[in-house]
Amino acid sequence: MKLVRYGERGAEKPGLLHVDGTIRDLSRVVRDIDGKALSDEGLSKLFWTDAGKLPIIPEGVRLGAPVAGVGKLIAIGLNYADHAEEAGLTVPPEPVVFMKATSAICGPDDDVEAPRGSEKLDWEVELAFVIGTRAKYVTLEDAMDHVAGYMICNDVSERSFQIERSGQWVKGKSHDTFAPLGPWLVTKDEIKDPQALDLWLNVNGVRRQTGTTATMVYGVAFLVHYLSQFMTLEPGDIITTGTPPGVGMGSRPPKFLHAGDVIELGITGLGSQRQVVVQA
Amino acid sequence: MKLVRYGERGAEKPGLLHVDGTIRDLSRVVRDIDGKALSDEGLSKLFWTDAGKLPIIPEGVRLGAPVAGVGKLIAIGLNYADHAEEAGLTVPPEPVVFMKATSAICGPDDDVEAPRGSEKLDWEVELAFVIGTRAKYVTLEDAMDHVAGYMICNDVSERSFQIERSGQWVKGKSHDTFAPLGPWLVTKDEIKDPQALDLWLNVNGVRRQTGTTATMVYGVAFLVHYLSQFMTLEPGDIITTGTPPGVGMGSRPPKFLHAGDVIELGITGLGSQRQVVVQA
Repeated sequence: MKLVRYGERGAEKPGLLHVDGTIRDLSRVVRDIDGKALSDEGLSKLFWTDAGKLPIIPEGVRLGAPVAGVGKLIAIGLNYADHAEEAGLTVPPEPVVFMKATSAICGPDDDVEAPRGSEKLDWEVELAFVIGTRAKYVTLEDAMDHVAGYMICNDVSERSFQIERSGQWVKGKSHDTFAPLGPWLVTKDEIKDPQALDLWLNVNGVRRQTGTTATMVYGVAFLVHYLSQFMTLEPGDIITTGTPPGVGMGSRPPKFLHAGDVIELGITGLGSQRQVVVQA
Repeated sequence: MKLVRYGERGAEKPGLLHVDGTIRDLSRVVRDIDGKALSDEGLSKLFWTDAGKLPIIPEGVRLGAPVAGVGKLIAIGLNYADHAEEAGLTVPPEPVVFMKATSAICGPDDDVEAPRGSEKLDWEVELAFVIGTRAKYVTLEDAMDHVAGYMICNDVSERSFQIERSGQWVKGKSHDTFAPLGPWLVTKDEIKDPQALDLWLNVNGVRRQTGTTATMVYGVAFLVHYLSQFMTLEPGDIITTGTPPGVGMGSRPPKFLHAGDVIELGITGLGSQRQVVVQA
């Protein structure tokens, strides 16, 4: 099942991508695609809905982030050995965890804002997953029971804010539009192995990132288990799992984004995103 | 005005502390004490409510965190020169910003959980403030217009998770119950100068922290202005502003919390909190 949220920003409605390629409205089935809808019970209700009978939404509608009411947007750093190398860093002995502000979440094709004073705006294609049921002190064996599904996240980053402005990374990870999500939340049943997905990202039509989740250091199941030792993961929480090589900061010489640039990115089975960079 | 949320965890109702010392129910006036209620319009409605005519809540009711639907729980590190010194660090050239998971939020007198494997559980009395209106690229002059009010936050921290477990601080700042808030959200009009408040914290009846917000390096107005350059602050977002000297990590020898310990803390005009440490 490919769940979406469609409509104007801040007024999105729940929907799904039907097998016929149309978007169907789910407003009469669920209030929104949120933690409640992503529980086992909530998803079961959606699975048993006859999608072919749902209203068709006209083509060309804007898509929002496919999850509403996100409590936490957690990100993993340096989670691909080859990306760590290009960043001049070694793979850490345990996952590096940081937060992005939930206010950074936007739709998959929304404009990405270059913050005022931005000098080093960068891209990061990432596999994100969404929590379906509460996870606290979860074993590795049970970890996947807590995952509802997957989607693409562009973990947009301002490297000077992230690294050169005192302290923690959150400062360079949290500007509005720094977390395009979607286009779809693809439920777990459709992704046989989250550690065997190809990722790619182009800037202005030039390939910049090519990777596979097979080279991820800490995989999805381990991350659920690991994070649940430090904080409780709640339904609707999103974890984005780190980026493969090819970010702007790692290029020789470094390349960064400016107003007018076009970013396109995708992951096997999860669709693709397209963003135009604009000045804030 | 002193706003509260009372009742069982997860089912709190809005209320206020009346001048007669009783808690009055606000359920018929607002849905909850959330971003909407904390807007200028929302607060105006509450100010014009005749509190004396509201239902009295029986004494001894549990208080929850005084704000619901918190989108971001942002914290400032090393924001008192004397605390930075005890931590063996210098005051940073710009505020150090980190996040705590919103799932860490709890009531002012709830038990504080020592996470499994915790070795260095620590306390931090802090002045927290709450955003009332959206703040993006706000000037220093306009900053205070965006603040709805103030409350106490115990920025509970597990130092080994924070510092010795790879990467960013969020790992040691986010366990359930690591952010007791309240007892009250005190609206801005009652606090003439947020930079002239005394803070204190006792562990098992022994004074550990004694400070004043007068020695805060980056004050409330500056923090609103500063943070709004990096992310949009939304109604109901909470910023906790750092702790004065006297944390366990800074003691010689270091002192940490264990199950059974009792933490009490307070700030001028904002009431006090009391937590018992329990094992997770």
